[in-house]
Amino acid sequence: MAKKSFLEQLINSPLAAKAGVPQGYPLRRYKQGEPLLHAPIVVGGQGRLTDALNTVLEGPYKLLKAEADSPRAGIVFDATGLTRPEDLNQLHSFFHPQIKKVADNARLVVIGTTPELIDDADARIAARALEGFTRSLAKEMRKAATVQLVYVDPAIDSSNFSTVESTLRFLLSGKSAYVDGQVIRVTPAPAEAPADWEKPLAGRLAVVTGAARGIGAVIAETLARDGASVICVDIPQAGEGLTATANKVKGTALPLDVTDPAAADKLAQHAQERYGKKIDVLVHNAGVTRDKLLANMDDSKWNMVQNINLIAPVRITEKLLAAGALGEKPAVIGVSSTSGIAGNRGQTNYATTKAGVIGFVDSLKDRLAEIGGNINAVAPGFIETDMTAAMPTGPREVGRRINSLQQGGQPVDVAETVAYFASTASTSVNGNTVRVCGQSMLGA
Amino acid sequence: MAKKSFLEQLINSPLAAKAGVPQGYPLRRYKQGEPLLHAPIVVGGQGRLTDALNTVLEGPYKLLKAEADSPRAGIVFDATGLTRPEDLNQLHSFFHPQIKKVADNARLVVIGTTPELIDDADARIAARALEGFTRSLAKEMRKAATVQLVYVDPAIDSSNFSTVESTLRFLLSGKSAYVDGQVIRVTPAPAEAPADWEKPLAGRLAVVTGAARGIGAVIAETLARDGASVICVDIPQAGEGLTATANKVKGTALPLDVTDPAAADKLAQHAQERYGKKIDVLVHNAGVTRDKLLANMDDSKWNMVQNINLIAPVRITEKLLAAGALGEKPAVIGVSSTSGIAGNRGQTNYATTKAGVIGFVDSLKDRLAEIGGNINAVAPGFIETDMTAAMPTGPREVGRRINSLQQGGQPVDVAETVAYFASTASTSVNGNTVRVCGQSMLGA
Repeated sequence: MAKKSFLEQLINSPLAAKAGVPQGYPLRRYKQGEPLLHAPIVVGGQGRLTDALNTVLEGPYKLLKAEADSPRAGIVFDATGLTRPEDLNQLHSFFHPQIKKVADNARLVVIGTTPELIDDADARIAARALEGFTRSLAKEMRKAATVQLVYVDPAIDSSNFSTVESTLRFLLSGKSAYVDGQVIRVTPAPAEAPADWEKPLAGRLAVVTGAARGIGAVIAETLARDGASVICVDIPQAGEGLTATANKVKGTALPLDVTDPAAADKLAQHAQERYGKKIDVLVHNAGVTRDKLLANMDDSKWNMVQNINLIAPVRITEKLLAAGALGEKPAVIGVSSTSGIAGNRGQTNYATTKAGVIGFVDSLKDRLAEIGGNINAVAPGFIETDMTAAMPTGPREVGRRINSLQQGGQPVDVAETVAYFASTASTSVNGNTVRVCGQSMLGA
Repeated sequence: MAKKSFLEQLINSPLAAKAGVPQGYPLRRYKQGEPLLHAPIVVGGQGRLTDALNTVLEGPYKLLKAEADSPRAGIVFDATGLTRPEDLNQLHSFFHPQIKKVADNARLVVIGTTPELIDDADARIAARALEGFTRSLAKEMRKAATVQLVYVDPAIDSSNFSTVESTLRFLLSGKSAYVDGQVIRVTPAPAEAPADWEKPLAGRLAVVTGAARGIGAVIAETLARDGASVICVDIPQAGEGLTATANKVKGTALPLDVTDPAAADKLAQHAQERYGKKIDVLVHNAGVTRDKLLANMDDSKWNMVQNINLIAPVRITEKLLAAGALGEKPAVIGVSSTSGIAGNRGQTNYATTKAGVIGFVDSLKDRLAEIGGNINAVAPGFIETDMTAAMPTGPREVGRRINSLQQGGQPVDVAETVAYFASTASTSVNGNTVRVCGQSMLGA
């Protein structure tokens, strides 16, 4: 991380806070061994999931009555019972008295039925309306509390509620500290709870590209923390950083250019030779930017970004799939970006690839589901890395603050989301692109 | 419009412009009788629509060779031929040399195939990537030039290209002056070109709710300009304004509370009694805000907004559909909001209804298609109305400028989009929520 300039120190100081410059509230992040939440949770609403919710949450969380006055660190609302626009008043009547009792870093989750899978028009309208509610409420919360919406398939009820558990555990813990105002869709594909929720990736073999430094290195560490063996991949020139990451995570290093036409074969071969098994988790983290206005962008800046960010992940994944080189319940994870969602000035090349990653997830989700796996993407917003540290002070300080949490995220926030997708408990989470952006105001 | 304060005048002055305060470039809006564009257009790309594009555009526009050096006011790129991520380099090679030749107020349109309807994974990825390109390029354009993406159904080719014509004419004219960086999906439902493109609504009977003032009054005027007969609806208390609008558009006034359980019957009855026909165009413009943080919001503020903005449009439409009271090729048009897409602090009630309107469009599009009609919504961003004029100067001046066109829109910009949806030439435009926001940076 670059040394902080005087201006940067000033703008992040208590003095600036007194002058009204927004200073984000400290985020409570996940720590192995600590309780998932620091205060009890409340369950509200009445729908087809309410009983299962109470049962599933009873173990990991302390449940509180909605009427209690003590601070709550979690609120889960079952909105699957809201089947007409007229029913939406239940959102107001339940949440209105709760808001003032919410603890810092609280986790609010509304669960509805996936609108586009609902036949009844009234129920579909009510379900779709939830998104306006949760995204607005997320913008109202203070002290790092977050609000999310989980859409579950109509085929999910109490009998197969295990499909939702990994998502709930993610959203109700510090693992999702920098995920805010987002929507996650859950399918009824059978999900397998891990023997130990603190080692959800035990026995999994993961590949992380771009692992020599930055977000990639932290993804490798986080997957290893969760029990995975990790093959760390980066370009040969990144040698030292790559070795450092591999040693840190007790994994192996594979120097490899992802645009190498033989990249997929080399990955599969390395997995077999060093671990005697197939790849279970494939994280396409390697990526570059080459920003220029399109009017001034030469071919090489366009093509390099396309080749590394989009074409390589697509070709590697398709080849590994065709060769049967992915393991059981494989998880493929792409890295998109808020730029890929909203577009960004100076990034026609980059945003094309990052929108392409969303298409990559959409286009392969059925194929992955067929073999028991899943494919999803993270879309980071402003994450504190060497890259953002090198930005000019003004744009950086604005970029950091124009989100509901009024601060930049950490690489670990991206990594936790990747780890959530990577688990066999998340095979029911398929086809999502989840923003890790503190509910950035920037969007489409 | 409220009188301008000194501060407001200052911030919008040439002095402020010199000091670096963004001042939007004047938008060239549609005027009946004027050429659609003020300079020729260029067609690029090679796909299944290229021949039809050249034929269809030949009439209303002057076509120019891509190699020509003179300014172009329109660029249309057929991206349906890009079927692999590797093909995306054609975006760069075509657009890069064009950008410096673009005229002020130019209209750039990329046409691709609707990604979610494509079976082939590679083609779907390439199609989805287009969105990152167009949204970024829109953020780079200057002097009020806009960039849009049109996704056409795989079943659309040269033989039924008429389905795309109303969308092209809208996006290639001043009618879409404040629509920027957006995506519109076109279906293969047969579309009927009007006898006269300057009177596309001739013979249509339209209902506009909330027509007494503001955006509603301008929608009524615009539909009348395009040849429609207009029933102007507003609450009885709005009497004077309602009569004024009705007289201006040579329509009829119907004082009616949209939350009246008999509202649908009264609308149908008025149409029959005064015009001897059914309703062809139904514009649900009536809407209110009652902003408060959820923690401070009482029942009445929640319920009033729900009843008027969401429940009334849903119930009125469903009753008119059930009663067979809509005419041939009926067009139903909702009004959503960027708040419904992104959420907004202090608007949990409003954003819930405006997200609900998106659900309303989604849930009824198949039913409208079955009877030859369509349903769509506009989602206005910052529009210059009495409401925004009454905002405090600071937030208003920021709100006006945080979009790619660096200015607020006019009510007519919303109205032109409504008129585009309302035509029988747009029955192939179904299920869209189109933002009229100058590509506001705010989004989800």
